[in-house]
Amino acid sequence: MAKQIFDYQNGDEVKLTVLVKTAEVRQAKNGNKFIAFTFQDASGHISAKFWDASEADIAQYKAGEVVQVSGKRELYQGNPQIKLYSVRLATQEEGNDPSKYVEHAPETADDMGEELNDFIFQITNANWNRIVRKVLGDHKQAFLTYPAAKSNHHAFTGGLAFHTLSILRLAKSVAAQYSSVNKSLLYAGAILHDLGKTIELSGPVSTEYTMEGNLIGHIVLIDEAIVVAAQELKIDPASEDMIMLRHVVLAHHGLLEYGSPVRPQLLEAQILHDLDELDAEINMLTTAYQRVEPGTFTERLFGMDNRRFYRPEKGQGYPDPK
Amino acid sequence: MAKQIFDYQNGDEVKLTVLVKTAEVRQAKNGNKFIAFTFQDASGHISAKFWDASEADIAQYKAGEVVQVSGKRELYQGNPQIKLYSVRLATQEEGNDPSKYVEHAPETADDMGEELNDFIFQITNANWNRIVRKVLGDHKQAFLTYPAAKSNHHAFTGGLAFHTLSILRLAKSVAAQYSSVNKSLLYAGAILHDLGKTIELSGPVSTEYTMEGNLIGHIVLIDEAIVVAAQELKIDPASEDMIMLRHVVLAHHGLLEYGSPVRPQLLEAQILHDLDELDAEINMLTTAYQRVEPGTFTERLFGMDNRRFYRPEKGQGYPDPK
Amino acid sequence: MAKQIFDYQNGDEVKLTVLVKTAEVRQAKNGNKFIAFTFQDASGHISAKFWDASEADIAQYKAGEVVQVSGKRELYQGNPQIKLYSVRLATQEEGNDPSKYVEHAPETADDMGEELNDFIFQITNANWNRIVRKVLGDHKQAFLTYPAAKSNHHAFTGGLAFHTLSILRLAKSVAAQYSSVNKSLLYAGAILHDLGKTIELSGPVSTEYTMEGNLIGHIVLIDEAIVVAAQELKIDPASEDMIMLRHVVLAHHGLLEYGSPVRPQLLEAQILHDLDELDAEINMLTTAYQRVEPGTFTERLFGMDNRRFYRPEKGQGYPDPK
Amino acid sequence: MAKQIFDYQNGDEVKLTVLVKTAEVRQAKNGNKFIAFTFQDASGHISAKFWDASEADIAQYKAGEVVQVSGKRELYQGNPQIKLYSVRLATQEEGNDPSKYVEHAPETADDMGEELNDFIFQITNANWNRIVRKVLGDHKQAFLTYPAAKSNHHAFTGGLAFHTLSILRLAKSVAAQYSSVNKSLLYAGAILHDLGKTIELSGPVSTEYTMEGNLIGHIVLIDEAIVVAAQELKIDPASEDMIMLRHVVLAHHGLLEYGSPVRPQLLEAQILHDLDELDAEINMLTTAYQRVEPGTFTERLFGMDNRRFYRPEKGQGYPDPK
Amino acid sequence: MAKQIFDYQNGDEVKLTVLVKTAEVRQAKNGNKFIAFTFQDASGHISAKFWDASEADIAQYKAGEVVQVSGKRELYQGNPQIKLYSVRLATQEEGNDPSKYVEHAPETADDMGEELNDFIFQITNANWNRIVRKVLGDHKQAFLTYPAAKSNHHAFTGGLAFHTLSILRLAKSVAAQYSSVNKSLLYAGAILHDLGKTIELSGPVSTEYTMEGNLIGHIVLIDEAIVVAAQELKIDPASEDMIMLRHVVLAHHGLLEYGSPVRPQLLEAQILHDLDELDAEINMLTTAYQRVEPGTFTERLFGMDNRRFYRPEKGQGYPDPK
Amino acid sequence: MAKQIFDYQNGDEVKLTVLVKTAEVRQAKNGNKFIAFTFQDASGHISAKFWDASEADIAQYKAGEVVQVSGKRELYQGNPQIKLYSVRLATQEEGNDPSKYVEHAPETADDMGEELNDFIFQITNANWNRIVRKVLGDHKQAFLTYPAAKSNHHAFTGGLAFHTLSILRLAKSVAAQYSSVNKSLLYAGAILHDLGKTIELSGPVSTEYTMEGNLIGHIVLIDEAIVVAAQELKIDPASEDMIMLRHVVLAHHGLLEYGSPVRPQLLEAQILHDLDELDAEINMLTTAYQRVEPGTFTERLFGMDNRRFYRPEKGQGYPDPK
Repeated sequence: MAKQIFDYQNGDEVKLTVLVKTAEVRQAKNGNKFIAFTFQDASGHISAKFWDASEADIAQYKAGEVVQVSGKRELYQGNPQIKLYSVRLATQEEGNDPSKYVEHAPETADDMGEELNDFIFQITNANWNRIVRKVLGDHKQAFLTYPAAKSNHHAFTGGLAFHTLSILRLAKSVAAQYSSVNKSLLYAGAILHDLGKTIELSGPVSTEYTMEGNLIGHIVLIDEAIVVAAQELKIDPASEDMIMLRHVVLAHHGLLEYGSPVRPQLLEAQILHDLDELDAEINMLTTAYQRVEPGTFTERLFGMDNRRFYRPEKGQGYPDPK
Repeated sequence: MAKQIFDYQNGDEVKLTVLVKTAEVRQAKNGNKFIAFTFQDASGHISAKFWDASEADIAQYKAGEVVQVSGKRELYQGNPQIKLYSVRLATQEEGNDPSKYVEHAPETADDMGEELNDFIFQITNANWNRIVRKVLGDHKQAFLTYPAAKSNHHAFTGGLAFHTLSILRLAKSVAAQYSSVNKSLLYAGAILHDLGKTIELSGPVSTEYTMEGNLIGHIVLIDEAIVVAAQELKIDPASEDMIMLRHVVLAHHGLLEYGSPVRPQLLEAQILHDLDELDAEINMLTTAYQRVEPGTFTERLFGMDNRRFYRPEKGQGYPDPK
Repeated sequence: MAKQIFDYQNGDEVKLTVLVKTAEVRQAKNGNKFIAFTFQDASGHISAKFWDASEADIAQYKAGEVVQVSGKRELYQGNPQIKLYSVRLATQEEGNDPSKYVEHAPETADDMGEELNDFIFQITNANWNRIVRKVLGDHKQAFLTYPAAKSNHHAFTGGLAFHTLSILRLAKSVAAQYSSVNKSLLYAGAILHDLGKTIELSGPVSTEYTMEGNLIGHIVLIDEAIVVAAQELKIDPASEDMIMLRHVVLAHHGLLEYGSPVRPQLLEAQILHDLDELDAEINMLTTAYQRVEPGTFTERLFGMDNRRFYRPEKGQGYPDPK
Repeated sequence: MAKQIFDYQNGDEVKLTVLVKTAEVRQAKNGNKFIAFTFQDASGHISAKFWDASEADIAQYKAGEVVQVSGKRELYQGNPQIKLYSVRLATQEEGNDPSKYVEHAPETADDMGEELNDFIFQITNANWNRIVRKVLGDHKQAFLTYPAAKSNHHAFTGGLAFHTLSILRLAKSVAAQYSSVNKSLLYAGAILHDLGKTIELSGPVSTEYTMEGNLIGHIVLIDEAIVVAAQELKIDPASEDMIMLRHVVLAHHGLLEYGSPVRPQLLEAQILHDLDELDAEINMLTTAYQRVEPGTFTERLFGMDNRRFYRPEKGQGYPDPK
Repeated sequence: MAKQIFDYQNGDEVKLTVLVKTAEVRQAKNGNKFIAFTFQDASGHISAKFWDASEADIAQYKAGEVVQVSGKRELYQGNPQIKLYSVRLATQEEGNDPSKYVEHAPETADDMGEELNDFIFQITNANWNRIVRKVLGDHKQAFLTYPAAKSNHHAFTGGLAFHTLSILRLAKSVAAQYSSVNKSLLYAGAILHDLGKTIELSGPVSTEYTMEGNLIGHIVLIDEAIVVAAQELKIDPASEDMIMLRHVVLAHHGLLEYGSPVRPQLLEAQILHDLDELDAEINMLTTAYQRVEPGTFTERLFGMDNRRFYRPEKGQGYPDPK
Repeated sequence: MAKQIFDYQNGDEVKLTVLVKTAEVRQAKNGNKFIAFTFQDASGHISAKFWDASEADIAQYKAGEVVQVSGKRELYQGNPQIKLYSVRLATQEEGNDPSKYVEHAPETADDMGEELNDFIFQITNANWNRIVRKVLGDHKQAFLTYPAAKSNHHAFTGGLAFHTLSILRLAKSVAAQYSSVNKSLLYAGAILHDLGKTIELSGPVSTEYTMEGNLIGHIVLIDEAIVVAAQELKIDPASEDMIMLRHVVLAHHGLLEYGSPVRPQLLEAQILHDLDELDAEINMLTTAYQRVEPGTFTERLFGMDNRRFYRPEKGQGYPDPK
């Protein structure tokens, strides 16, 4: 089978078939245009610059195309990139099918859907159970394919479902350990909390914020969907349990500064916020570790307050992060 | 006609028929209970302490009762209060009708309702016009009687409508001065912006936050009502104009820290936020000035970052704030 | 068996044998002194005021004494207290043994010690394992009896060990779910992270900060102990694994503003911080819920940014928090 | 008549006579120098880069020169720019008069001066009236030609007077609506509030901060001028009305963080601050909207906390911002 | 000679002739009034409460009176106070002269004035020298008697001059150590920096903020005085040296949040700010240490961000802070 | 003698033998590599860019090499740089000894060591004296050669010792002026406070943070060394004087946000923090002034909150900062 991006080391001459993830056209200081590419395949993504691009190049090498590239992998300011020798569109025979080159969750949509159903089954409050089935049902396809964020964490196909499932697994442990926790509420909140991202973001590929995403935001968008669903299911949205569910979803960013219109005022709202952060952080750090050598620091991570993290040398009972 | 609270000066012996606005039972340091009263009539409100209250007193003198009090008006830490000599329930003959003793907006509900209709008439976008009529219609009675806040500003019967109308009048001037402003959007946003307070607060008398108010908040509550109304009126909530209207309402607190889930991203959203603050501040300051003598400072105002304001001596073209 | 504090309801006449947890002497506004008591037994703690205390009373009813009280349980500003009728020292026959009246962790010191050993057994890095055994061994007795904090969370006998164990259980789930986590490092860090509290705090009863606690703080105190232990065990404190362990402990408050001299720069440091917060919050909220009725809000919680939390009505799959 | 900058669309070949507003010499990454131009005419300003500039080019094409340029208008990172083909100095015949190419207020200096006089006429407090006439008289010419800021808002010839007048018009509406407002004080404060900018800034063209502007700031500079004027007019600067006027001017930035040495403590000081912000924001947003297409977002606006604003599609009662 | 306040220990019966520094009338929770006294003599000040005060008591025992008191010194919440047995006005024979009972600087006005002159003599820039002589001359009497602050630091007669002199002595050491420092500018700035307090505060006894102090503030008040003095002395206030002097004075609070309209932009402005803080802090801490026993913590110090400081046991080369 | 970097003016043709301080390889926008040099000799440091660098160039011109360069000194964005004509390695004859080209403290290591001994001699508390001798002895060589910081202040050979000595001289003045100060404690704290930088930083040349420096930080590193030294010297680290010494060192950054795990709670801790800042600021500003012309502003200074400082024209008693 053909080699993938992360099968190469720094310094290697590379020959790859990859998907153009982003292709930003910029102007070099000599007045010429260049394309700042991000290429990806299932092993991850890497950047590359295409200098002195003609209008024809710009028209041809757009996000979504599969291309054949040759070049050299090197380090640039601590991050791997490809120094390009050549680029051309891939032919049919070479495997010109974009879906084969996207990063995706480590589990299939089917497996994730099934495990999700098991969690829904354990939501014993009837209103919450019906609302979850209804709202999730309305966005099921997007839920299983969207990323969880544009770039911060779980930024891959299926990332939204995988992030949700990871939180649910943590929630299961927490509910097992602390008897005061309302498992049904925690599960229902976890499943719905980021579902508004299917409206806030444009889709699984070349993900951007929609106008609605910018002006309303995923937190309120899903709260509105819950209220509309309640009306359709003839559930009173002002009943205590429905207020609780809406609250858990609305408060999940934890702080007003992070966009939640209310701070957590229920135990389960606080826990959901904590587990959401925990899973996102572990994903961000694990990904960042994979991109640097043992014994060095990662690049500054925007989602971690611009901190750099240290990847220890191997050994010492430390698992290999790759 | 009988004298009212603010017809008396500090040092005067007073004799008044007043409404009990709040009656908090507290424990004195000698172990006895006392009642911390706020009395009100149409001229304003004043505090008073009832020492060594028996269980019978506590049961009798509750918020909502009309009472006959005698005592002496004095200053306590810069604020007027009544040193009580006696309290008893008012008789029918003495005018035992709570509604006669509440503070209220300086205009009648009818007048305000009529002026409001004139503004609605000028909303030329059909979707916004229909949404405003529908959502306002669903909460019309409460809108005309609720206060605009529990205590900060416009905390009197009809305060919500009066605050809304004051903003609309400012909005009219602004739209006349700046040709780039969308008057319809600004008016529609102004009318709806605080309407969620009719759900967030318990009512015009002895106002408290409802559980729904605490856990969801008036900003999201009215946004939900807009979306539900759109569904009933068969208006697509995701059309650009509906997203704009929802945004203007959601963003009206201006900052995430103040509870808006998004910051203003439309000119009209920014203007509505500014005018909302301007009118609230003028109301707070005018009220605070009325409670102190010229040539002195007001008490610290919670809604103004705990600043004290100076009430100048009369003259100098300075209007009398009372 | 005799009734305990939380066997009574508000309004009940009470008769109790309790331990004086704190006895602050204050001056009432009439110039007399009074004692502000906190009483406790194994069911929890409650406050009470002893008015017009004589010098003899003050000398007699000190923290650490067991007393016999009668009075009435009532609500004061949303919190239960006892209105005192009488207080006297308990006799030998009545059970004058302070250790019987303290709140304590829900598990015994023996059980906790044993489970802890299981966790230590899984620390496969030899340096970390030896350091943990050495430092923990030096403070074992205190570790099993001290509270985890003066008042915020786990403020009961054995609270430090119980909090540590709760984090370890969460850590076990996290390590099982995420393969990139170094379990040995996470366990070693969790066990040591708050051990400096045995130096920072004065002890399990009438807990205060020591001078050393105020001027150095538990984070640095335990880091120093690790370095000294390394010297004694002939382990190089500047080896990579020892720097990692010290870092995980030093960074566990997460933010410089919270007293960590460095922010987390290792995956395990970040996770330990998150789990520390999560367990502390669940403990604070569960405790606060137990002190109020369903359908009401807790008092403002200092450790939760002064938020009040809502305790829902029963039912809806919501477990009874007590 | 010749075409102006904003008569062209993106993609058009352009031929323009324009004023060099700024000409910054920078070093390209190939070691050569280039000139980063901002060109302007009465329709607005636009940027352009002149690559591989010789020392002669640098000496010739300076801020303040009128030049003849040809090139192509295009979009660069969301903002329009000119890709230059050629530049040369304009000849006399081509209209080499810088004053014809500056952006200027939408009203003439004469009209603005006249309307200003009407407002001054309504300042009924004699001290304030005399101070305003004196201080304004000392800076009249600069007041009518300076911009209101270096770049944030009203950054065009006459911008200072136009901004002041816009605030006065808003102030007139506010004073008409709220009877507690001292109109004389509000007008006097509004006229003087930014007058110190005539000392803080270098002038209407190629505006920079003066050394005095940096080290003292326009707020204190105008306060000093008021005190000196009072001395010359034999008005006691410590009389209550003079303290009030100085306060209104000193406090107009609203917050200490924004450079006011005191926060507003008079109703009129608060209102002036609010109207100052409102007018500046509307100007910034209207200008930003004009530079982008309907249905897109503006660039990040420094003066609006780096927010981007959405310019809606046309229609819906939305006026055309251009 | 008669004993003074701090000649007594806690627990002592006291008999004192003291000045009433403050006498606030408050209402006890039983409805009666009491007087919260601060008494002072040259040894310091101490608080005391006078319960059940009659109107006659209130009229008689006002700030500024010398009284004869008997009572007992005791600790209240960590601070010494007098439990009063009796109070009466002092007779002529007992020494009824308020000036004998005020706290004052440790040096005489004459000595301080003389040392100050030596510093002025070393200001070699003629403009700065003349301005300092003129402005200081206009406020000389107040400068030598006012406190440096209402209560934070150097809150005693002559405190302003003593604080100024202490900064000058530090400045002398700094200028001697660092050759890049402009000694003339640093001295001139130090002498003038707090001189506006003679306008901001009401006087050396019962010190309050004046209206002018609240609405303008001492920083701008002295800057205005400098500009007016320059005019009278025919010095151009816009010359570079005058801008530098004004800047050093205006910037001395260091941060905008602390009321400086500009931050330091000259080396000497930064140094003056640092030395001002250093001297104020040493004064606050030394005073606080004197009020507590060795081996204990001070009360929380408002001027030190509410920190408590530890006063060590004697010995160890630690000088006795008393 | 050969000319040094700062013997040349802007515009001069230069010919220099200099040390390569840093040599960062970057990628130009045309895809080629260039080297961003910092050159230094005893007169200071200056930057220069080497365009189109070959792999051989990159391998040859590394940090630590002495090179012969020719070029032209010019200003780039307000800072001097060298436009390079040629670079080659210096020969033996030309003086290829790196130690001759480093910036160094204005005093010799011997002189500084001697003066330091005088200060140590005055530490009269035996424990502090012995600890200082022991810990300093363990790091003496590094202490006398390391810089005090990577780039902010005193970033030259011997900077750490020089900074320490400057603080000690200030401390001497302060202790002489204020009798309440414990001179021994202040001196001991000053000597040790930054000694951890010998572990945190990599060395005097091409200074970087070590892994230990990043993960532990110099404040805790030196505290650990103190505790280990106490153990070796059989001094109880928990004695009051040792806690005081550790506290003074731990608290010297003043704020938790700046990395101190505790805020100052001793007078001497507060003073040390203040003097540390004062000396660092004077060093930063004096250095920055030297790099710009009189009558201009410095570049933005990172260590001074990004402020720019004004260097006044000569004269006016202002010493020449060079």
